[in-house]
Amino acid sequence: MTASYDVAVIGATGSVGEALVQVLEERRFPLGTLHALAGAESVGQTVSYKGRNVRVREMQTFDFSSVQLVFFAAGQEATAAYIDQARAAGCMIIDLAGGLPSDQAPRVVPEVNSQVLENLSAPYVLTSPSSISVALGCVLAALAKTIAVERINLTACLAVSSRGREGVRELARQTAELLNGRAFEPQLFGRQMAFNMLAEVEASDGQGHGALEKRVANELKELLAQPTLKASINCIQAPVFFGDSLSVSLQTTKTLDIAKVCDVLQHAPALECVEFEDYPTVVGDAVGQDLIYVGRVRAGIDDPAELNLWIASDNVRKGAAINAVQLAELLIKHYL
Amino acid sequence: MTASYDVAVIGATGSVGEALVQVLEERRFPLGTLHALAGAESVGQTVSYKGRNVRVREMQTFDFSSVQLVFFAAGQEATAAYIDQARAAGCMIIDLAGGLPSDQAPRVVPEVNSQVLENLSAPYVLTSPSSISVALGCVLAALAKTIAVERINLTACLAVSSRGREGVRELARQTAELLNGRAFEPQLFGRQMAFNMLAEVEASDGQGHGALEKRVANELKELLAQPTLKASINCIQAPVFFGDSLSVSLQTTKTLDIAKVCDVLQHAPALECVEFEDYPTVVGDAVGQDLIYVGRVRAGIDDPAELNLWIASDNVRKGAAINAVQLAELLIKHYL
Repeated sequence: MTASYDVAVIGATGSVGEALVQVLEERRFPLGTLHALAGAESVGQTVSYKGRNVRVREMQTFDFSSVQLVFFAAGQEATAAYIDQARAAGCMIIDLAGGLPSDQAPRVVPEVNSQVLENLSAPYVLTSPSSISVALGCVLAALAKTIAVERINLTACLAVSSRGREGVRELARQTAELLNGRAFEPQLFGRQMAFNMLAEVEASDGQGHGALEKRVANELKELLAQPTLKASINCIQAPVFFGDSLSVSLQTTKTLDIAKVCDVLQHAPALECVEFEDYPTVVGDAVGQDLIYVGRVRAGIDDPAELNLWIASDNVRKGAAINAVQLAELLIKHYL
Repeated sequence: MTASYDVAVIGATGSVGEALVQVLEERRFPLGTLHALAGAESVGQTVSYKGRNVRVREMQTFDFSSVQLVFFAAGQEATAAYIDQARAAGCMIIDLAGGLPSDQAPRVVPEVNSQVLENLSAPYVLTSPSSISVALGCVLAALAKTIAVERINLTACLAVSSRGREGVRELARQTAELLNGRAFEPQLFGRQMAFNMLAEVEASDGQGHGALEKRVANELKELLAQPTLKASINCIQAPVFFGDSLSVSLQTTKTLDIAKVCDVLQHAPALECVEFEDYPTVVGDAVGQDLIYVGRVRAGIDDPAELNLWIASDNVRKGAAINAVQLAELLIKHYL
């Protein structure tokens, strides 16, 4: 007999929650009963798991003692509201919202810092980092075998799916209105998103930084165990439905051997390095895939110790759902 | 009597050529006869100048001795093919294609290095830099009053209009096909441009750099007279019709006074600095305007000597046409 575990997915009707359920099925996660939970407004909907329709139930009345594992994929407020109940019930927890302090919920990407799993104690709570940190973390961890990165300059062009289904609907709506020559009022993003680039993905703090920008900077330092790393993180919103496109410039300590760098990237787990004459994009390459695509690997124009590259990754699937399920698999392996 | 000058615009039917003619009219350039020139395929078209339709003529048979000033706005091949004739005829020349060596055709942005105009000798040939260098150059020249920039990290998200009218048509076509659920073959860009970000705007050289990326790095050093400046220039293609969106991170020598930086930017020529709670975008702010819009001015998350900012600028109008006409005005003032 194989052990199986009862699982709750909080935020099951969101795009990440839906991808989580799909990935649990695809990876044959040893799942007993699946509890699909969401806010009251989603009750009555269903999610599909192994050909069955699982009814969505309200998270507010859920009895966490009926499951061993909980995925929090409904945003920081929902995590904050229910995590104590889940902890008290002895659940293992994977949080995807990123609001928990790292001493209580270490950020882990299996390809980067799975060694963290070796020294946990109950309650077992892990944070699955932002999709940007998952993708860039995998690339930086691979590079750490051959170069020492001192400074990261990142411009991340985020898809509207980072705002969930509403973001996708709003870009489609605005685009259709514009192509039909009709005026429209923005319902999301605060302005025209179609055929436009937005300088930020959320309101900035008093210093001008976005919460996601600070989150990514902190996550990268923790994932790489490199607290002195300097990170310039610029998150912008692109008129793209799915997938993160990352423009990355790294400052290293030595003149680079680009052939060696490419070789390291080609043999790294979870990465696909696209050869020189070509480059990957989110549409056609990364979206729907389990791999992180890397291309345009090149030294600086003015600095042989500078490494520039481009990353295309599925923000919902690889950046969130797969990483979270991998973390659950590791928790089970180590502690159940 | 006011002096007036006969002018040829080579590439008059392109989007930059059309904007040039419009800006000549708007700025009341002292123009005698306007010669609108283009390749044989455009002969028979007209361009509008002061309410009249000017017939487009073939550049191949043009007599350059009939004008005093020539704008080359038809790409590097056309400049290479006809510049000797224009020079031999004693014309003043503004090249927008960027293929001429800087000792023969210095790159000038009036707000940055107009002092170059004081020491020219015939033949008078100036290069109007790429739209990216015009926008970023104006910002860097303003900043030079208060900070010393040692390294530039730029990710430039270019509109499809950087590929002329064909680029605009192709994005519109691809978008319409997708929204109508129809498959399509890319006719430009080599792949899906609609709802996608492309890692490069042209084929890369043997080291992985694009020609525009190298051009911008060189132009910035020349404009700022700072040959040791280090520049990481990453040009990517966005599904946007008009306007450059620049994500910029600058490394400087000292802890920044952000209030001072904002003050300097607010009072600089050609710049509009958008206050903290807001930010500019190409749609709604920059496109169609003569100003370069700056926003999200902030220090680094990890480095108080790092300056991050965002620039939105009209690539065709401010980035090309206005700068070129300003250069012509300066040439006339100094040497005619």
